[in-house]
Amino acid sequence: MSARLQNNIAALFAPKAVCVLGASRDPAKIGHILLRNLLRAGFPGKIFPINPYADKILGLDSLRKPADIPAGCRPLCLAVICLPAEQVPDALCELGRLPTRAAVIISAGFSESGGRGAELEEKLAAIARDFGIALLGPNSIGLYVAAGALNATFVEGGLLPGYTGFFSQSGAFTAAMFDWAADKNFGFSTFVSLGGKVSLDESDMLAYLADDPHTKVIVGYIENVSDGPRFLRCAYSATRKKPVILFKAGRGGRSFAGSLDMRVNPDLAYDAAFTQTGVIRAKEIRDIFGMAQAFASCSLPVGPALAVVGNGGRIGAVAADSCLDSGLVLAPFSDKTVKRLETRLPSYVSARNPVDLMAGATPERFAEACAAVLEDPAVNSLLLFAATSARGALDGLPQTVASLPNPEKKPILACLMGGMGVAQARRRFFECGIPCYSFPEPAIKSLAAMYRQSLWKDNHMPVEIGYRHDKGRARAAIEQAAAEGLLELGGYYALEILSAYEIPCLDARLARTEAEAVQIARLCGGPVALKIASPHILSKSGAAGVALNLQSPDEVRAAFADIASRSGHMRGQAGISGCIVQAMAPKNAHELVLAFNRHNSFGPMLLFGLRDYIRLFDDLSCRLAPLSLDDAGDMLREVKAFPILAGLDGQEPVKLTALEDILLILSQIAVDFPEIQEVECNPVLADPSGAHVWGARILLSPAALENLR
Amino acid sequence: MSARLQNNIAALFAPKAVCVLGASRDPAKIGHILLRNLLRAGFPGKIFPINPYADKILGLDSLRKPADIPAGCRPLCLAVICLPAEQVPDALCELGRLPTRAAVIISAGFSESGGRGAELEEKLAAIARDFGIALLGPNSIGLYVAAGALNATFVEGGLLPGYTGFFSQSGAFTAAMFDWAADKNFGFSTFVSLGGKVSLDESDMLAYLADDPHTKVIVGYIENVSDGPRFLRCAYSATRKKPVILFKAGRGGRSFAGSLDMRVNPDLAYDAAFTQTGVIRAKEIRDIFGMAQAFASCSLPVGPALAVVGNGGRIGAVAADSCLDSGLVLAPFSDKTVKRLETRLPSYVSARNPVDLMAGATPERFAEACAAVLEDPAVNSLLLFAATSARGALDGLPQTVASLPNPEKKPILACLMGGMGVAQARRRFFECGIPCYSFPEPAIKSLAAMYRQSLWKDNHMPVEIGYRHDKGRARAAIEQAAAEGLLELGGYYALEILSAYEIPCLDARLARTEAEAVQIARLCGGPVALKIASPHILSKSGAAGVALNLQSPDEVRAAFADIASRSGHMRGQAGISGCIVQAMAPKNAHELVLAFNRHNSFGPMLLFGLRDYIRLFDDLSCRLAPLSLDDAGDMLREVKAFPILAGLDGQEPVKLTALEDILLILSQIAVDFPEIQEVECNPVLADPSGAHVWGARILLSPAALENLR
Repeated sequence: MSARLQNNIAALFAPKAVCVLGASRDPAKIGHILLRNLLRAGFPGKIFPINPYADKILGLDSLRKPADIPAGCRPLCLAVICLPAEQVPDALCELGRLPTRAAVIISAGFSESGGRGAELEEKLAAIARDFGIALLGPNSIGLYVAAGALNATFVEGGLLPGYTGFFSQSGAFTAAMFDWAADKNFGFSTFVSLGGKVSLDESDMLAYLADDPHTKVIVGYIENVSDGPRFLRCAYSATRKKPVILFKAGRGGRSFAGSLDMRVNPDLAYDAAFTQTGVIRAKEIRDIFGMAQAFASCSLPVGPALAVVGNGGRIGAVAADSCLDSGLVLAPFSDKTVKRLETRLPSYVSARNPVDLMAGATPERFAEACAAVLEDPAVNSLLLFAATSARGALDGLPQTVASLPNPEKKPILACLMGGMGVAQARRRFFECGIPCYSFPEPAIKSLAAMYRQSLWKDNHMPVEIGYRHDKGRARAAIEQAAAEGLLELGGYYALEILSAYEIPCLDARLARTEAEAVQIARLCGGPVALKIASPHILSKSGAAGVALNLQSPDEVRAAFADIASRSGHMRGQAGISGCIVQAMAPKNAHELVLAFNRHNSFGPMLLFGLRDYIRLFDDLSCRLAPLSLDDAGDMLREVKAFPILAGLDGQEPVKLTALEDILLILSQIAVDFPEIQEVECNPVLADPSGAHVWGARILLSPAALENLR
Repeated sequence: MSARLQNNIAALFAPKAVCVLGASRDPAKIGHILLRNLLRAGFPGKIFPINPYADKILGLDSLRKPADIPAGCRPLCLAVICLPAEQVPDALCELGRLPTRAAVIISAGFSESGGRGAELEEKLAAIARDFGIALLGPNSIGLYVAAGALNATFVEGGLLPGYTGFFSQSGAFTAAMFDWAADKNFGFSTFVSLGGKVSLDESDMLAYLADDPHTKVIVGYIENVSDGPRFLRCAYSATRKKPVILFKAGRGGRSFAGSLDMRVNPDLAYDAAFTQTGVIRAKEIRDIFGMAQAFASCSLPVGPALAVVGNGGRIGAVAADSCLDSGLVLAPFSDKTVKRLETRLPSYVSARNPVDLMAGATPERFAEACAAVLEDPAVNSLLLFAATSARGALDGLPQTVASLPNPEKKPILACLMGGMGVAQARRRFFECGIPCYSFPEPAIKSLAAMYRQSLWKDNHMPVEIGYRHDKGRARAAIEQAAAEGLLELGGYYALEILSAYEIPCLDARLARTEAEAVQIARLCGGPVALKIASPHILSKSGAAGVALNLQSPDEVRAAFADIASRSGHMRGQAGISGCIVQAMAPKNAHELVLAFNRHNSFGPMLLFGLRDYIRLFDDLSCRLAPLSLDDAGDMLREVKAFPILAGLDGQEPVKLTALEDILLILSQIAVDFPEIQEVECNPVLADPSGAHVWGARILLSPAALENLR
């Protein structure tokens, strides 16, 4: 990003003046509501309605055109554009010349409306680029900045100041968030509707909000990512500074349902991108709200141990269930705490976690219990559960709990189940800085996310690892295959490319005659497989061109003849050039899949799993290239079947470093050869002595090949 | 249950008069609030406050004692007891003698308060039993019956009539539900707080509500089940008539985390009980509310195909994501529907599912689209998503949609995200009989549950299957082991018991000398294993007393000597009597676990899974005994690893009927021998030719053995 655009983004969020193009006297028009919202929020700078047909709007003098804005106000004037789509490009041009450095286009009717609209949108992009305008929209709901008392949105109702920086790509969701926040007295530092993202996108928001001193937590709703690599950089840098919670719409089918085709699910790349950059992924929309509350109000817990204090029967058990699902644990209280609880509380109250104070517990009793557990070093966070049936107890509770000594700032969350009857108490908890939930599960989910965030440390920086490789030899193989018109490479070419990068492949050599086949088989020193060697026929396990586990020279000869005769039928297209003779897999080796493919936005993504368990249990891990050594190790450990590789029942573990090496080399190949769309090493055979590729398939990208010429 | 108690339960829910013991003039007392609630709800029968120290309470004449109730009112008079715990047993006795046939004890201070309270509670149970009183509580919040205008609860605020029959074991949760319902204008047919369940429990509620003509859906919150077999009967019978949604608190750790000990998780029995009786299990508390709305308002969908119509950007995509997770599918529209949508709607609207009408859609446009998709035979249900950003569109929408022709009663659900801004529209949807949600995911989850309910057919009746077995031989083995003081049986005794029921076990015989061992090994005709045969040492794979895969007589001799010498060290306690010689497992057989253990409430539960995948993926299935043939088949098919058994990659499938047989026989053993606490056949080796038990462990129950004597 240019320094100019970066400066201009600052102007977008901290303008000294605002002009509204398309300001209107008609209270039903967006250009009116927007102006009214600006005035109501008490924006301290100048506000210029621009409308050639009006003299005064809402008491303000209306200007005829942008050029009427006084020169002194122009550079730091934010332009809000509510004009019909057709008029927007010219207006933006005019603004650019003033110069105006930041604009929000509220108008709709661009690419979402097809043909003509798309043309207009391209014009906007070009103008913004030429003038370096920091541009939000089109089709944006607007922008709110608490610190600047700036409400340049057309949503009815006001926004409150707070600590959450929010951006959204969906207008519908933005409006819902707005409305929800009003309900909960939930405040924002910044509230941005991205709209059509013709210029500024999610990455710009992450970059800005990461450094915004008024923002403690970043929350976003995205539908796609405009620029994958830039998103990764911005997200990675933002999560070092504050929590980032994102919801991504459109997950698509995530199950492999018996297939090994990893191309089916581009959403996996988002999982990998979020994991590798420390972004917290909200899985359901409602989770965004729950998490935003907790992150905005509390410090992060330093450990997983949760204390539950409540007056409600077995709701403690429900909380305990939730802990188990989420990676938290119920804190075992220290003896001191147990003794203290036993001394200070009635004898019928359990002094163990979860603490049930029973119906009729007073705020004082709650305070006694909470104070004791907050002081216990074994406790990292506290969930307070107050049942409505305890009449009266709720009244003083929020203030009492909020004023307890809590020098380590252990997070405290509350849960009040019910509706109107507890609405006021909930609000009071919010006012005391204690997030309050309607159900125990979302409270625990939020705490668990906070704990994971606390684990996200600054030792994840990808490190480049060098492996010996012969790039020229691999390139030669690719070019030769491309010259032959091949895009999907199996057998010879695949092994050649992988071998050039010193990925260990099971011994494989071309035999043109039966005699050669027998000779090579002898050299392999054990049972062998024969695979048809035509570059035009992909050798796949189970296909007709493969014979497995050949023990004797006679079997090798017979198999060679059989494959040659079968392939004779297709010689016309295929032109068999012999058979590949390959050592059989070692006994008891595990069959793994190590692969990469390319995602539209994020680029190459590595995949790892045990062959059968990918199919049966969707058990696989993925990371974006380039991999760090840590990433490679995490990929192995992340699959649920990892204990099998690590040695179940006292079996010897497979050589894990050999697998890490292959992943890291595949990552290197992905970076070195944009013309390779996909590599699938399947199976890779792993045992305690090492790992070898037994079968591989490489897919070239026609477009990338074209670029190379 | 006695016919008398059954009649008395009817009296509980349809009393002709109500008396309140402990009625009070003090507005802060429960005995006052309860009386006031009774009056406010407009109960048409007589109401008798009973208080020896008051003349009039809330305008009603107060009686001194229950015996003052006029004789004509007594039999159908419901007694509500708000007295101090100490006074309750005597009062209940007095009521029983009148006779009063039904009572609710609101008072607390019984078993939950320990010692003296538990004594009092036992008294209550005995009195209720003696007089056949239908008794709710103690520690109940009360009882509401819409049809009788009966609100005998002490919760502030009113309840609305509706179609949901609700019961809860948790006071805290009951109060929350009450409050939530008021918020949502959600009504109940019946609302019962079970309290301490000294007499009536969840099974009674299921039995009553199943036949209650005012109840369309049954919802319950339980913490445990008092009587497992009775619960199964009542639940099974209730789900034939109407949907039953239950939340069970206290799931406990569900993961096997590397262990195979199936005793760790009694909650699995609830999963099995709910599955086998067709109960819908709500996994989170908030799901109860969401599902109750949908089930109470809509007919069940006849298929999984959902249509989504909305005006909100990509929220359709979020809904589609949710479908994929839940077992629903987005309906592919018929050509007719697509054409109709294209003709009637603006050209920029997509005529595919999900239908995005874009911002600015009017209620009329919604109506056009909804009418078209409701008529499409490929559509089974409709989710309407209206974004708040579409100002104005919400006003007429609920009425418009509710009045569309919908002859097949396809369920229609709505989703409005936001807070106060959409609260009114949400309420209007409710009033029109369309459940309305704040987020798309819970709406879809509810629809998915409704679809599963529609699949729950009446062909699940367990059928008894007979297997040849020698019960006497098994009993003899059990008695012999018990006489030897053994409780955990491996090796000889386990195989003897299983063999008596003709469960196929791999050939195994006792060798007392090296020579015998060699001879038996020869008869096995292949490699063998030796296992220590002392009844006091459990042979477990991997233990010191086992030698595997012995190929030659020399190896057998050496292993025998080795085991004998090792066990010599422990001869003092162990007294080795030789080695069991057993044929080795067939090559490439799958290692399975088939087992049963006993749950406190539900009795014997069968478990099935592939050994490694239980540990790695928690992949196992369970059903309560006695199994039907269908149950056994479902158990096999329900594990995710089933494709491995069914033949992956063209491999021959294992003999599934052999596995079903073992499950059914284990079920028979569980029923025949209450003195067997647990049988674990592990591993069972399965291949295309059959299935054989290779190792087994049987645990006897000391208590049950005691009973037998």
